[in-house]
Amino acid sequence: MLSTTPRTRLGREKQRAGTDRQDLYDVLDTGLFCHLGVVVDGCPMVVPTGYGRAGDTLYLHGSTGARSLRAAAGAEVCVTVTHVDGIVLARSVFHHSVNYRSAIIYGRPEPLTGEEERLEGLRALTEQLAPGQWDYARRPSPKELAATAVLALSLEEASVKIRRGPPQDDEADYELPVWAGVLPLRTAWGAPVPDPVLPEGIDVPVHISGRE
Amino acid sequence: MLSTTPRTRLGREKQRAGTDRQDLYDVLDTGLFCHLGVVVDGCPMVVPTGYGRAGDTLYLHGSTGARSLRAAAGAEVCVTVTHVDGIVLARSVFHHSVNYRSAIIYGRPEPLTGEEERLEGLRALTEQLAPGQWDYARRPSPKELAATAVLALSLEEASVKIRRGPPQDDEADYELPVWAGVLPLRTAWGAPVPDPVLPEGIDVPVHISGRE
Repeated sequence: MLSTTPRTRLGREKQRAGTDRQDLYDVLDTGLFCHLGVVVDGCPMVVPTGYGRAGDTLYLHGSTGARSLRAAAGAEVCVTVTHVDGIVLARSVFHHSVNYRSAIIYGRPEPLTGEEERLEGLRALTEQLAPGQWDYARRPSPKELAATAVLALSLEEASVKIRRGPPQDDEADYELPVWAGVLPLRTAWGAPVPDPVLPEGIDVPVHISGRE
Repeated sequence: MLSTTPRTRLGREKQRAGTDRQDLYDVLDTGLFCHLGVVVDGCPMVVPTGYGRAGDTLYLHGSTGARSLRAAAGAEVCVTVTHVDGIVLARSVFHHSVNYRSAIIYGRPEPLTGEEERLEGLRALTEQLAPGQWDYARRPSPKELAATAVLALSLEEASVKIRRGPPQDDEADYELPVWAGVLPLRTAWGAPVPDPVLPEGIDVPVHISGRE
């Protein structure tokens, strides 16, 4: 079950709350970027950031020089992952909506210092972005490891919100001669585009060309 | 030209900065959700939120009861819109990246109070989500207008960041027998799904079925 703290309890649209840990994992595991929110000089800052999940830990990483990651280390953050699945076209403008799945996580990410745990975090981050590449591409060198900040955020305080299905119109509006329904939005991988300087004879590996 | 204030000047990867207002408009006009960052009780909160652009104003809206919108009114916020265009597969794990376009806007959104300006904001919000629907669906009633908070945020303080193209690997790694390139990610509209209770004989309008 997911926790309900005052800030993860949905104030509105409670029927949209996901309640299982699996709902949370599903939203996180199909995402590529999260939006990392931090407070800098009293003001919010929201930055698209790579992430990876392993168990109940979310890993964040970036250059050791990145402002947002420096501000996130040990401080309260909010991490949000959102998928848009379609536009909900209602009979009234007021009831227009979006079908989506989103996860919001609150906590204090801790910088990882040990080499083994940092590598474990980078493995999760790489596999989230590009499954199969950790075992295929060159692994990080000690110098590269030192230049990368890896933070670990617990998934303890999290909420999931999901909207699915057709519009919910006002009773009277169902009489209107207005088309209503959902316009689905899908994402799909295109054909891999080789680096222009890639030598001939290096085939695209199946974990890239066959990605689902 | 876009402003450069201390917080919109890119600290890193300066070559990724968009410098034209048109870059900003392009990123905003092709998005459906923004991520709205506010500070609540000293902690960041990041919520996926509908938006619309008209000129150099970004409109945000939601229920008058929504925590994030209440916290945003007249306070410092950060609004981020991100498009993921592809995964950049490098020869080393370290140089893996994402092709993306993102816009970050800082400012203090002001609640709109006049009926005319509120309707103008809702028109921009509706047309961003579903072009053509403002003139097709039923317009907001006075009661619906009263239940909707509409905020206006100036686009004065904004930055754009764009990454395109192949991986940039370390010189020595170009010798490796590793495939490198970009796996493009595309979004596409599916076929419209009618509301199950839609009466027969109401056709899908072209502005929905023909959306690009």
